[in-house]
Amino acid sequence: MLNWLLIFIPIAVYLEFSQGNAVWIFVASMLAILPLAGLMGRATEELAIRAGSAVGGLLNATFGNATELIIAFFALKAGKLDVVKASITGSILGNILLVLGLAVFLGGLKHKTQVFNQKNAGILTSLLTLSVIGLLIPAVFDLASVNFAHVAQPADLDFKVSVAAAIVLILIYLGNVYFSLVTHKDMLSPHDDEEHEAATWSVPMAVGVLLASTVAVGFMSEFLVGSLEEASHALGLSEFFVGIILIPIIGNAAEHASAVMFALKNKMDLAVTIAVGSTIQVALLVAPLLVLLGLTVGQKMDLVMHNPLELIAVAAGIVIANSIARDGESNWLEGLMLLGVYVLLAFAFFYFPTVSAAAVH
Amino acid sequence: MLNWLLIFIPIAVYLEFSQGNAVWIFVASMLAILPLAGLMGRATEELAIRAGSAVGGLLNATFGNATELIIAFFALKAGKLDVVKASITGSILGNILLVLGLAVFLGGLKHKTQVFNQKNAGILTSLLTLSVIGLLIPAVFDLASVNFAHVAQPADLDFKVSVAAAIVLILIYLGNVYFSLVTHKDMLSPHDDEEHEAATWSVPMAVGVLLASTVAVGFMSEFLVGSLEEASHALGLSEFFVGIILIPIIGNAAEHASAVMFALKNKMDLAVTIAVGSTIQVALLVAPLLVLLGLTVGQKMDLVMHNPLELIAVAAGIVIANSIARDGESNWLEGLMLLGVYVLLAFAFFYFPTVSAAAVH
Amino acid sequence: MLNWLLIFIPIAVYLEFSQGNAVWIFVASMLAILPLAGLMGRATEELAIRAGSAVGGLLNATFGNATELIIAFFALKAGKLDVVKASITGSILGNILLVLGLAVFLGGLKHKTQVFNQKNAGILTSLLTLSVIGLLIPAVFDLASVNFAHVAQPADLDFKVSVAAAIVLILIYLGNVYFSLVTHKDMLSPHDDEEHEAATWSVPMAVGVLLASTVAVGFMSEFLVGSLEEASHALGLSEFFVGIILIPIIGNAAEHASAVMFALKNKMDLAVTIAVGSTIQVALLVAPLLVLLGLTVGQKMDLVMHNPLELIAVAAGIVIANSIARDGESNWLEGLMLLGVYVLLAFAFFYFPTVSAAAVH
Repeated sequence: MLNWLLIFIPIAVYLEFSQGNAVWIFVASMLAILPLAGLMGRATEELAIRAGSAVGGLLNATFGNATELIIAFFALKAGKLDVVKASITGSILGNILLVLGLAVFLGGLKHKTQVFNQKNAGILTSLLTLSVIGLLIPAVFDLASVNFAHVAQPADLDFKVSVAAAIVLILIYLGNVYFSLVTHKDMLSPHDDEEHEAATWSVPMAVGVLLASTVAVGFMSEFLVGSLEEASHALGLSEFFVGIILIPIIGNAAEHASAVMFALKNKMDLAVTIAVGSTIQVALLVAPLLVLLGLTVGQKMDLVMHNPLELIAVAAGIVIANSIARDGESNWLEGLMLLGVYVLLAFAFFYFPTVSAAAVH
Repeated sequence: MLNWLLIFIPIAVYLEFSQGNAVWIFVASMLAILPLAGLMGRATEELAIRAGSAVGGLLNATFGNATELIIAFFALKAGKLDVVKASITGSILGNILLVLGLAVFLGGLKHKTQVFNQKNAGILTSLLTLSVIGLLIPAVFDLASVNFAHVAQPADLDFKVSVAAAIVLILIYLGNVYFSLVTHKDMLSPHDDEEHEAATWSVPMAVGVLLASTVAVGFMSEFLVGSLEEASHALGLSEFFVGIILIPIIGNAAEHASAVMFALKNKMDLAVTIAVGSTIQVALLVAPLLVLLGLTVGQKMDLVMHNPLELIAVAAGIVIANSIARDGESNWLEGLMLLGVYVLLAFAFFYFPTVSAAAVH
Repeated sequence: MLNWLLIFIPIAVYLEFSQGNAVWIFVASMLAILPLAGLMGRATEELAIRAGSAVGGLLNATFGNATELIIAFFALKAGKLDVVKASITGSILGNILLVLGLAVFLGGLKHKTQVFNQKNAGILTSLLTLSVIGLLIPAVFDLASVNFAHVAQPADLDFKVSVAAAIVLILIYLGNVYFSLVTHKDMLSPHDDEEHEAATWSVPMAVGVLLASTVAVGFMSEFLVGSLEEASHALGLSEFFVGIILIPIIGNAAEHASAVMFALKNKMDLAVTIAVGSTIQVALLVAPLLVLLGLTVGQKMDLVMHNPLELIAVAAGIVIANSIARDGESNWLEGLMLLGVYVLLAFAFFYFPTVSAAAVH
């Protein structure tokens, strides 16, 4: 239904090559990514249905956050490591607070109390806790190196710790995939009957759409990243607000739509799996992969968030989501709390003063 | 039974107008507030019984922390923003650690294991988590502005973020009232039979007592706040200890008495609701209201706690209370843990060095 | 089976008195402690069996961490307070992440889902939460004194707060012993049938072994502490890594073996009690006792961890363990998460820069 926004692909290309206004390039490429993310998701799902549940689950798990990964990769290639980190933070907050919050709130307005598989929720909340620890340790390592051990240039040590952390996190992510698809497949079967959709696209069509939309997302991401700085200054918005709040809303639009739809149909297991699963994937797979990918493009990307507000935002988002998801039940008030924390954080990032490049150590 | 302490009202008035010793004014006004808080509570309850459960619940919910709000308002009017913030911290710690701890400990000594509605406990602990996030974000925003973005005077931004946070927190508080009194009233019905007391005061008498005690609390609070600084220096106590530990014990005396009484009668749902409900109310209603009330008396009151010890104290109190309340069961050891954390914090605030005004940025 | 390592006792003695290489003294004394810790544990158990369950439980609870206490005491006597604190941190991390992680992981590979008494787990996780608060408050007190109240030399205040905290923590520990052995003994009875072993040693033999191994551990600990600094420099390892990661692996070897053995036999209650119980004992008994013992040897030992990485490591370990233990069920993925966090922290301490003595305030 958003496919008419594809018209923004040629518009973005035209603006970029005619060296148009950065704000328009930024807006056009952002709008173009919206339907492309949807198409990538749809094509992945079509292939997943045909591939059978085990490989299909793996496909879904791996390509679920492809849009975020591509945007972040182009920011990484351009050396804009702050944008990469902001997009990680923003993707986590967007999934765990906005997507989950909207699903729980709207689902809860329609259905008084909604239930989901408590054992699955238990594993997911432990993985969320692990995610926040994985992102916290490098930041505290940096902080302690500077303020306690008085190391002037901790960047190299930060990078080593981040590479080690990245490998550990990816191993746990692979462990989780093996756990859900092989050893404990039955334990995690959803509480509600899963939708058994039939594939409607042919395999060549699905593969074609997947490839075409991936390539297009790549170009749009490059334009987006290239215009980000100038556009946010022109709009009077802090780069934190743009990177952490604005871009992830676009990148996660597809997840929003399906999570809310499942919640309204009272299929909360699927809604929770989409929102929480995406968060876990960003923290345990996308972020660590970016550290390793950085090596291939000559960028020493670490996992250190320098802004304490980002750190606390991620921790706060995961703590409140844990508190709400743990008992395997949800209602509209819990959705309101998630949305409330998101709005609180959005205000904080909106008012956050711009950091001069010289000020960052 | 504490009504004989009303004698301290004229004593406090006499001392204040004869410009008596600050320590005596401080002690007399503190002792006078003790029975007044009890009378306000009693009058509110009498009106609540007559008003029926829905409006009655709202009345109780709104006037439950009136004493704390009045004391804080007079401190606000006098521009003593640190005292206001200390009274917020102290009220949260007093309710969640001392009131809940005493109730759980004493109730647990009499009854081996006490149970309470687990679903209610789930909502309450999520709201507690939200409370600590709401109070944490402005403080971290300030910290990050100063130490990361190197903003010299973050006061204006702090205030903007605090106003935004205040509005979000009040909306969630209203959502919670609507949730408990309208949409999920049945879910939160207590595990034990609620006491159905008959009203014993006439409406004019209840209204009269409510008005008279509110006015008297107002005067006593003004004296208390006016003598606080001089009295705490004379007594050799840090202002943090007086504001965070001493005053809230007085302000919460009525809650103490009823929570412990209900726990001894094995009505843990009521005891938990009083202690945890008060905490939530202070964090989600009283503190945000003070920010907005500050605007009416020309005080730019923000929600930023500058002392890291205060922040961690609130976080620690809420985390341990969550850990204990979550499972819907309690015993004396859990009460001992809550009291232990309270005593630990009381010692920390007791030994905390006095901060010179110049030292605070 | 490790008893052949006792040969390292005479080797360590010989090296120490012939003023041998520090690295060899360090390695030999570490290897000698391994079987001695096992013998102390065995002798305590033998006495506990004969003493009956109540006194036996108390014996086990009190002597369970004797090795750690002895090593730390000799570091304390030598004035190496940083080593004492590192051994506390390391003992907590080793028990809660490595011992529990290995038991849950290996047990989970053999048995699909393992269950343990949920009520017991609830009490244990609350005590863990209390432990982290008890260790956090003194550190934050110090931080706030220096950065907020601008006190130049907070050492005396730190010490006062630490003594107060130590007394509170020991009282709660005693409360816990009374709770588990007297008032709520039945509630905490394990889910699986406890092993009823017969005593095989005579009382004089058990007492003799206990005394002899305690004395020997004492000597070995003195050698270990004496050679620590020189050995870690020679090996190119940070003192944090040696104190927090290396030494506790040795000190906890006996716990490792029995926790993993019980997990493989699907007796998870015993495995969890060993790992989590040891952690609680270190935080609520060993650490506070060291503060009080410091007074007897003229050392003002406080509970302040100055390195933020240590603080966050302890907090992270306890938070992830709580998340996993709370539901009374475990599987291999949860064990992998615990081990993952341990490896992450081990890397962080491995890369942590050495702190020059002058740099610590």
